[in-house]
Amino acid sequence: MRIGVLTGGGDCPGLNAVIRAIVRKGVPEYNYQFVGFRDGWRGPLEGVTMPLDIPAVRGILPRGGTILGSSRTNPFKVDGGVDQIRRTLMNLGVEALIAIGGEDTLGVAAKLHEKGVQVVGVPKTIDNDLSGTDYTFGFDTAVGIATEAIDRLHTTAESHHRALIVEVMGRHAGWIALHSGMAGGANVILIPEVPFDIDQVCDWVNSRFRTNYSPIVVVAEGATPKDGTMGVLTGEKDAFGHVRLGGIGESIAREIEERTGKEARTTVLGHVQRGGTPSSRDRWLATRFGLHAIDAVHDAAWGSMVALRGADIIRVPLAEATEKLKTVDPALYAEAAQFFG
Amino acid sequence: MRIGVLTGGGDCPGLNAVIRAIVRKGVPEYNYQFVGFRDGWRGPLEGVTMPLDIPAVRGILPRGGTILGSSRTNPFKVDGGVDQIRRTLMNLGVEALIAIGGEDTLGVAAKLHEKGVQVVGVPKTIDNDLSGTDYTFGFDTAVGIATEAIDRLHTTAESHHRALIVEVMGRHAGWIALHSGMAGGANVILIPEVPFDIDQVCDWVNSRFRTNYSPIVVVAEGATPKDGTMGVLTGEKDAFGHVRLGGIGESIAREIEERTGKEARTTVLGHVQRGGTPSSRDRWLATRFGLHAIDAVHDAAWGSMVALRGADIIRVPLAEATEKLKTVDPALYAEAAQFFG
Amino acid sequence: MRIGVLTGGGDCPGLNAVIRAIVRKGVPEYNYQFVGFRDGWRGPLEGVTMPLDIPAVRGILPRGGTILGSSRTNPFKVDGGVDQIRRTLMNLGVEALIAIGGEDTLGVAAKLHEKGVQVVGVPKTIDNDLSGTDYTFGFDTAVGIATEAIDRLHTTAESHHRALIVEVMGRHAGWIALHSGMAGGANVILIPEVPFDIDQVCDWVNSRFRTNYSPIVVVAEGATPKDGTMGVLTGEKDAFGHVRLGGIGESIAREIEERTGKEARTTVLGHVQRGGTPSSRDRWLATRFGLHAIDAVHDAAWGSMVALRGADIIRVPLAEATEKLKTVDPALYAEAAQFFG
Amino acid sequence: MRIGVLTGGGDCPGLNAVIRAIVRKGVPEYNYQFVGFRDGWRGPLEGVTMPLDIPAVRGILPRGGTILGSSRTNPFKVDGGVDQIRRTLMNLGVEALIAIGGEDTLGVAAKLHEKGVQVVGVPKTIDNDLSGTDYTFGFDTAVGIATEAIDRLHTTAESHHRALIVEVMGRHAGWIALHSGMAGGANVILIPEVPFDIDQVCDWVNSRFRTNYSPIVVVAEGATPKDGTMGVLTGEKDAFGHVRLGGIGESIAREIEERTGKEARTTVLGHVQRGGTPSSRDRWLATRFGLHAIDAVHDAAWGSMVALRGADIIRVPLAEATEKLKTVDPALYAEAAQFFG
Repeated sequence: MRIGVLTGGGDCPGLNAVIRAIVRKGVPEYNYQFVGFRDGWRGPLEGVTMPLDIPAVRGILPRGGTILGSSRTNPFKVDGGVDQIRRTLMNLGVEALIAIGGEDTLGVAAKLHEKGVQVVGVPKTIDNDLSGTDYTFGFDTAVGIATEAIDRLHTTAESHHRALIVEVMGRHAGWIALHSGMAGGANVILIPEVPFDIDQVCDWVNSRFRTNYSPIVVVAEGATPKDGTMGVLTGEKDAFGHVRLGGIGESIAREIEERTGKEARTTVLGHVQRGGTPSSRDRWLATRFGLHAIDAVHDAAWGSMVALRGADIIRVPLAEATEKLKTVDPALYAEAAQFFG
Repeated sequence: MRIGVLTGGGDCPGLNAVIRAIVRKGVPEYNYQFVGFRDGWRGPLEGVTMPLDIPAVRGILPRGGTILGSSRTNPFKVDGGVDQIRRTLMNLGVEALIAIGGEDTLGVAAKLHEKGVQVVGVPKTIDNDLSGTDYTFGFDTAVGIATEAIDRLHTTAESHHRALIVEVMGRHAGWIALHSGMAGGANVILIPEVPFDIDQVCDWVNSRFRTNYSPIVVVAEGATPKDGTMGVLTGEKDAFGHVRLGGIGESIAREIEERTGKEARTTVLGHVQRGGTPSSRDRWLATRFGLHAIDAVHDAAWGSMVALRGADIIRVPLAEATEKLKTVDPALYAEAAQFFG
Repeated sequence: MRIGVLTGGGDCPGLNAVIRAIVRKGVPEYNYQFVGFRDGWRGPLEGVTMPLDIPAVRGILPRGGTILGSSRTNPFKVDGGVDQIRRTLMNLGVEALIAIGGEDTLGVAAKLHEKGVQVVGVPKTIDNDLSGTDYTFGFDTAVGIATEAIDRLHTTAESHHRALIVEVMGRHAGWIALHSGMAGGANVILIPEVPFDIDQVCDWVNSRFRTNYSPIVVVAEGATPKDGTMGVLTGEKDAFGHVRLGGIGESIAREIEERTGKEARTTVLGHVQRGGTPSSRDRWLATRFGLHAIDAVHDAAWGSMVALRGADIIRVPLAEATEKLKTVDPALYAEAAQFFG
Repeated sequence: MRIGVLTGGGDCPGLNAVIRAIVRKGVPEYNYQFVGFRDGWRGPLEGVTMPLDIPAVRGILPRGGTILGSSRTNPFKVDGGVDQIRRTLMNLGVEALIAIGGEDTLGVAAKLHEKGVQVVGVPKTIDNDLSGTDYTFGFDTAVGIATEAIDRLHTTAESHHRALIVEVMGRHAGWIALHSGMAGGANVILIPEVPFDIDQVCDWVNSRFRTNYSPIVVVAEGATPKDGTMGVLTGEKDAFGHVRLGGIGESIAREIEERTGKEARTTVLGHVQRGGTPSSRDRWLATRFGLHAIDAVHDAAWGSMVALRGADIIRVPLAEATEKLKTVDPALYAEAAQFFG
């Protein structure tokens, strides 16, 4: 049986570990052949492939990125896209697909499954906001990178008197901010799920300054202020006709400076959080996801997605991952808030 | 209410994070006072204490080790030890204890609970072999350290022709070897749960040599050969009256050299795996364990132990942790074996 | 003899290592007593001190920051500042000062020396732009942090099609950008010493895109475009009355997006580069600087500063460090440019 | 002009960075073609090659190991070896060689130069014991790895009462032990250059135990005790007819246990120190060595070797590297000894 593999969406540490596990089990155990579809759904759409065998996956376990490349191509936004995919699969003799990706990639996979394409999914997002699975791979690595940055900021915080703001990834959910903020001992954590009051933030900041240490504020990129509590945000014009063109971290830094009179500096980690070698836990999880994904193919469990439940890998319907976002529970945020100020 | 805290047994990254969380919630939220008992059970036994308040836990989150010190003292092996402990608690006005430790420390806690002492436990072991909880803190850090070492050995493996053996911690269970071996792409993983056949090991080693790469063998310190399959082990005398005084890793290296004719080198990570800053995940887990432990005290849940179940922190009876060792499931080992040779 | 020690200016990994070496040699070898002046020159100015003995420096070797605190206080900008300092020293019986700092701090030290104060200097800057010494401590750590960030960006660069800009420290000299850009394999390095042509930058960027990989651009925060070649910069208003409020990295990212049509993302490491544990090399250098600084005090080499020349620590006049900035040699930049595009 | 490149001897972080720089400058700047000789001198001896062009060196900058492979083959120990090499070079049209290696590899290069082969050398050793250059690449990485290990051991040292011995690389010179010992705050550093007195070592160890902390002893693998001061060493038989089969670290640990009554544990880093990604400083140095090596070829500076002098890359005669070992100066060891006990 010939199986196609693709990786869609943003970069994420662990993608190569998944690919490697799929091939390292699929070939010797099930006698499968593999076709590497390049650049996400563009691969099956346009028939762009690369060889995918045991030599091709040699040494890729610790490497970030994906040997298959990626894109945000959506075949459902292309006229006759589904038919093109069917033709590609038929021409190449590919009987099933393993799609490794996030909400968008798996959403496409779910729809293709409904249309009769044999597909199995592997959940990917560094934001950890996919439902159906306790954790996604790439998340632990991103949290580790952010925590290391916060660790480094602490020493400056101890000897100098300025507020330090770290903007981390997390457009719709604040998991990276929450975990790294707690692991890094941040004094304030702001997440998209809980619109913040800038006055409250400054209270926490001042409270910390009074202990003679400096505050570290961790902000998810998608965090927003409660309506009307903060003057000017990204994209808005202020009294002088100036438009802020930084992120929310930069905006918060400016507000803190204005309201507390203390200096504030911002670090924006950006894509550094998506790249590089995966942590040992992410390699472990990604590898197990890959092994179980090819088992799912072997079991003809079409339309399913591998997922982590506790310490076990199970299968759940693809739709479960794409239905709703997994956002931070208020109770968890309250645990973290124990340390604010 | 005055609460005593102690950390017993071996060093483990995350101990300080637990202590910090206990105090950072216990003081402002429950108005508790804390007494730091020094050096494990020796503290309550001999009344050796140190102040434990918010200033005392400032900055300790990222630090390895434990500000309370530790020991392997067992009050039940001391005449009248339990009474001594009761007297200490009474003299100091300490109404409850939080014991952070492994199988031995929690075993003592369980017995004290049976004798009416109010105690709550937090499970600690880098070996991850405590039952009742999906994971213990310190484990992720130890796996990460071992994985980094394996990563570094791979490059030597690619350009030189010698077998590289890494001996990691794990006297009774092979969790560190299993996880780091999988995360690091080892070619052979040997764990205590599965006595190994040295001929099979050499087969895997030779199989790897034939691909022009060199094999990496990860061995848990407690791994043992099947009876009679390996000549001379640590402590035993060989034909020349020589006694091997290294670990199992060194013994395996010698066997590989003799049987395959290829060079073999051993790395023994030793206590490096126990020390230093905890990983972000271990800080997260340890912090949540601490928060929930003081909640357990608040709820008078005596004789319980906090534990991780999936993504939630729950309580289980202390006895659950100490009843039996959590060893590697054969099915999990089979997943790892997919990559051997 | 009683010696005062102070650390002035910005945070820098290695400060504590210097302090530790001074005390660990000064006490047993020369029978000195030490006074820790807090917060840079504010200490001697206002008589703010802390104990500085062997117990005080225990365990500080690997810690970022400075146990003495720091500030940018300049006693020469305070009426009667010099007299205040003299009085403080007299009252405390302090006969000599060791000033650890950058251009500003050592500039003050040089002037005080001219006015008869017995002072020895230790050069500090993560920017490596102090003359008189081959390298300053803190630099290697900052370069390492930036290089790790670039390493992580490479994997995203390999699988996604967008330009990645990393803004690193370096207001007046581009040493961090040069070293990390070369070590990280950046495709473009922009430094303050060489005003850049944004069109040339886009040529290099496009040249890289054509190989199917994405470009990584490393920019020192003080880099500037040649006059008139770039539309709108930080602080300037554009055609729509918008004012850019990011750094040079963000501005370059916007230009690249407009001129090449490709996406561009910025990472601003900020103060992460100043903090955290020093690299092994910086601990080595800082320790040797401390040992030789107290030797200089012992030799009454007032007005001198320790410096690295090759593999040796020597003494140079304080003025040498503060006379002119050490900027990147065009020949060195040409070596790096070998790899652009 | 066609240039052959080879890497000989042990693995060393930075080899790939040298190869990359040679090719990235040699091709566009000088229009050279390159031949990659595989596995050290075996390549030119047996004519085993691989393509070496710009695509071949893509992405190798951060990778440990060497894409050319390595060996300890010595053509002068092969009958007619030199003639074979000459024939290979002639057949392949290779006019010059760049040999990247340590004492042995460069020794062969020096002899070939005497016999008229056009060769340029690049000095390589993680031990930093090659004369003629201030530092060799790979050294900084090895020191960093050892220092991280010592950092991790410190936390165990702070909470538990046992001596921790770390055995690091360094058969003939103690540079790695010296630098990592100083950077890691070791309490004792033992190097080959200074035979140690085990009683003095135990004095230092006990002195540290008395402060309630535990000692960390860093030992170079080639360190030896003064004659007759230590009972039984590796390879020798003791009173019971037992032969120690560990390294010097393990032997010292046993002596410490017997003489002080305290527990002692050993970590042997082994080949972990040779592998993995080079530090930023090593990538910088290796890259500059490669750029200047190809310049040396262009300048027909045959029989020369690139070297670091201060912050500059210069050329020295190959013989300078191979004449005598660069061992630790007693004055430097005395600086480190400031911190013993």
